[in-house]
Amino acid sequence: MNESRIQRVVGIDAGGTRTRARLADAATGRTLGEGTGGPGNALSVPAAALVRHLTEALRGALGPGAGPPAAVVAGFAGGGPGGGREKALAAVEAALAGLGAGRAVRVDVRGDAEVAFAAGPGTPADGLVLIAGTGAVGARVRGRRMVSAADGDGWLLGDAGSGFWLGREALRAVLRALDGRGPATALTEPVAALCGGLSKEHVVRFAYADRPVRLAELSPLVVGVAAGGDTVAEELLDRAAAELTSTVGALEPRPGEPLVVTGGLLGPGGPLLSRLTDRVRPLGLTPAPVPDGLPGAVALARLLA
Amino acid sequence: MNESRIQRVVGIDAGGTRTRARLADAATGRTLGEGTGGPGNALSVPAAALVRHLTEALRGALGPGAGPPAAVVAGFAGGGPGGGREKALAAVEAALAGLGAGRAVRVDVRGDAEVAFAAGPGTPADGLVLIAGTGAVGARVRGRRMVSAADGDGWLLGDAGSGFWLGREALRAVLRALDGRGPATALTEPVAALCGGLSKEHVVRFAYADRPVRLAELSPLVVGVAAGGDTVAEELLDRAAAELTSTVGALEPRPGEPLVVTGGLLGPGGPLLSRLTDRVRPLGLTPAPVPDGLPGAVALARLLA
Repeated sequence: MNESRIQRVVGIDAGGTRTRARLADAATGRTLGEGTGGPGNALSVPAAALVRHLTEALRGALGPGAGPPAAVVAGFAGGGPGGGREKALAAVEAALAGLGAGRAVRVDVRGDAEVAFAAGPGTPADGLVLIAGTGAVGARVRGRRMVSAADGDGWLLGDAGSGFWLGREALRAVLRALDGRGPATALTEPVAALCGGLSKEHVVRFAYADRPVRLAELSPLVVGVAAGGDTVAEELLDRAAAELTSTVGALEPRPGEPLVVTGGLLGPGGPLLSRLTDRVRPLGLTPAPVPDGLPGAVALARLLA
Repeated sequence: MNESRIQRVVGIDAGGTRTRARLADAATGRTLGEGTGGPGNALSVPAAALVRHLTEALRGALGPGAGPPAAVVAGFAGGGPGGGREKALAAVEAALAGLGAGRAVRVDVRGDAEVAFAAGPGTPADGLVLIAGTGAVGARVRGRRMVSAADGDGWLLGDAGSGFWLGREALRAVLRALDGRGPATALTEPVAALCGGLSKEHVVRFAYADRPVRLAELSPLVVGVAAGGDTVAEELLDRAAAELTSTVGALEPRPGEPLVVTGGLLGPGGPLLSRLTDRVRPLGLTPAPVPDGLPGAVALARLLA
């Protein structure tokens, strides 16, 4: 077993953009080291790349020497049940072994919803979590395990109220303004600039030119135009918040239970946070925004150790 | 010039599924020959394949010998302004030349909306056309030329009320039924059978496994389940008809003007035809369904000759 004086644990938050790892004192939770690596979505990142990105993040967090940590908990986007859990677990174990830290370590792999929920105030065990970034998913957690989910169906079928959804709806609003199906909007000018011209053909060509999910990059533009007072953009943010509220509603919320929210749209200061807060108040819920799931992964690792 | 006794013209209807050509007597419109070839979408089919499919269709229509036709009009999906008109024109000319029928022929390439409109009763010159098949687009035609369009924005951004739209919404309705965001629906059982299992994971995996546009193949299933009295499926058909009505409305319809409708959902006996008819009646419009644009292409070729 670990013979160093302090028992150490590692939390990992592996998302679609990057992988973060944090080394902490198991007794106090104090951070001892951090590292970052490439994308860590357990479904979309190939196995070899997943090991490499985890190794980058773990190397930074563990630092030189000092032996294996007592426990590792890793939350993966796409790492839930029915997702890439086995692949993610194998990747974590391979990365730890490659760093000479694989011996006698307890490893647990979770979906991103579970570590995000555990990042909530007081490391709650039961309640709801809602993530809205590029995608959108809600989950009910019981005993620190996800027991049901709503949406998270991806850009083609769902992720209603997500960054992708906002970007796609912004393009649709511009197309509707251009062909007379919808009202004029201040979204038109910046979208036309992005698409290289002010016509439906330009917008359509832009949209189909690359991976659909990249339309999520348009969501800050919607937020900015809405801040300028554009009614169409404001309505898109309202509709996004309404969709996310409907996702929460599908989880049969109970008044007063925890609702942890995160992701680019709902983290601290996120552009949909106040709109969501207003809408879930009648359900007896108060969103607790967290920047990401990393502290939750650390908290779960401390419990595991 | 053509020295045979009868002056002959060719109409071509080139769609996403197949290309059809018809040889007709320029004076009477009587059909003299027909041929069919592979897909003819001017945007998505590569140039060499487009020439090959046009050659197949033209060879069948022209038959052996008999010299070049006086005029050829070809309507192409994706062949409108801003689309693949130049590519389509070059392909028609290459196919005619390859068949030894290129000399002294007048050739005109149109978008599918123009030939579909010309297929309406009495070969109208001015009015509206609405196509709802795999995709959905509306257009205003003046002097047999399209002057404005609504929707036709493709599966990612639009085609509201199309076959793709119905198929995607059917999967979404099943996902919402499965995770509690929506009501139970009789769509669930046949969709689960198609997806290989009764879970959100099965439906999501099916949807992302191949080209999104293939979801249009689910639209007959929606029609069938709606016919069985399922409220959710009926509402999808109602919403599709409402979306198509909105597309017509964006063209600023005038009471009493022609509205030619076609495509799998709106042709004669099409599953959305009566719903659309009810909805456009308050606008003073009566849809005239036609099976396809081929007779319109022939009519335009007779006018050209």
